[in-house]
Amino acid sequence: MSGSVIIAGLGPGAEALVTPDVSAALAQATDVVGYIPYVARVAERPGLTLHASDNRVEIDRSRHALDMASQGKRVVVVSSGDPGVFAMASAVFEAVEAGPSAWRDLDIRVLPGITAMLAAAARVGAPLGHDFCAINLSDNLKPWALIEKRLRLAAEADFAMAFYNPRSRSRPEGFARTLTLLKAVCGDARPVIFARAVSTPEEEIRVVPLPDCEPDMADMRTMVLVGSSATRIIARDGAPIVYTPRSVPMPESA
Amino acid sequence: MSGSVIIAGLGPGAEALVTPDVSAALAQATDVVGYIPYVARVAERPGLTLHASDNRVEIDRSRHALDMASQGKRVVVVSSGDPGVFAMASAVFEAVEAGPSAWRDLDIRVLPGITAMLAAAARVGAPLGHDFCAINLSDNLKPWALIEKRLRLAAEADFAMAFYNPRSRSRPEGFARTLTLLKAVCGDARPVIFARAVSTPEEEIRVVPLPDCEPDMADMRTMVLVGSSATRIIARDGAPIVYTPRSVPMPESA
Repeated sequence: MSGSVIIAGLGPGAEALVTPDVSAALAQATDVVGYIPYVARVAERPGLTLHASDNRVEIDRSRHALDMASQGKRVVVVSSGDPGVFAMASAVFEAVEAGPSAWRDLDIRVLPGITAMLAAAARVGAPLGHDFCAINLSDNLKPWALIEKRLRLAAEADFAMAFYNPRSRSRPEGFARTLTLLKAVCGDARPVIFARAVSTPEEEIRVVPLPDCEPDMADMRTMVLVGSSATRIIARDGAPIVYTPRSVPMPESA
Repeated sequence: MSGSVIIAGLGPGAEALVTPDVSAALAQATDVVGYIPYVARVAERPGLTLHASDNRVEIDRSRHALDMASQGKRVVVVSSGDPGVFAMASAVFEAVEAGPSAWRDLDIRVLPGITAMLAAAARVGAPLGHDFCAINLSDNLKPWALIEKRLRLAAEADFAMAFYNPRSRSRPEGFARTLTLLKAVCGDARPVIFARAVSTPEEEIRVVPLPDCEPDMADMRTMVLVGSSATRIIARDGAPIVYTPRSVPMPESA
């Protein structure tokens, strides 16, 4: 029996956002590994072993998956969102590169999923409808100075921005610094979207002008989207629509 | 009967990448509108009217959808990929903002989809596994100078980059300029991924070092991903794996 590792994106939470491709992979798996709350989303069945592990052990988890695949298991590594966006895919490939050369010959595939920024954007309109960037605000694995540099350059480029991991329990001050920097550099009242637990029963969405944003509006389960200077709000009776137009005005006819 | 407009993402091409949410919306629609090749992906059935239109009429198409919804129809506007990423969602909201105020009270929802950059990334590994940006290289709706500014700042920020619409038939020179700029600014041999028609039978993927990239490696159906300075290649017997590690080295212990 030939083993495999499939790194699969479960999307942001709702079952209706899991692709048929991912569902089929789970239906054929012998072993599922992942962070506890993501493994909890996989239904138990005979012939399937669930291996849930804690946060911050991504490399150990990856090695475990690769090792089981070497023994002929059909392993699915589950991520929330998309596995290639601040999730398990890079961790698995780091383990492959550092591991035994035989791991390179394994059948390893990545199945994309609905990443949190796109699920959050869809809930309010189309704030990422023009050029944008995605930044992981956690400084567990990179120096804070690099995050700050990227924030400044992204603001100068007038990208809309999506922030993953805005506020960790262990290092809550990063998001406060981010807001201080953006308020100073952007100097306007562009909309900021705080989208918590998107597509789950606990979903909460707030749209807040940048000058009114406070660090405690985000927690570990919040995705933060910041508009560009062109992002617009359409007021209406219900929740406002937030979107970034496709066009940028052309210079005076040359 | 109360009408609605659902702007739904069909993903990059394969049926197995269409979310159950989108499939359910299509099953309940009375009318589907969209660009010809995307509407062609929707199965005909009694009670469903398909309205296929040509490219570059996004605002007319949006008005048509909103108008039918005002008359009580359940309209689905189909996009490829994710509707919020260089696709139909912003066009519909532009039409809402400029249209009759009654349109603001319509039930309008966006259903996310697998966007091309994430499908392309998944095929080669995890090149977008760290901070990245997404740029539409078409200068139909924005000045070329802005694209160039964003490319320079994105390279300075050391983002991985995803390029949508790299090469249009009418303006092929933009992508040549992009490559010239990146070769000069990046000055290294970071991998570039040309992913054509991802997840369809015509899929073709090439991984090319930046100095060797040529403009004609991309066409209208190609998604281009450019690694950051940290992006790595794992050589193996089959296609190489391309991924960007999660970590950036920390400065010497402070």
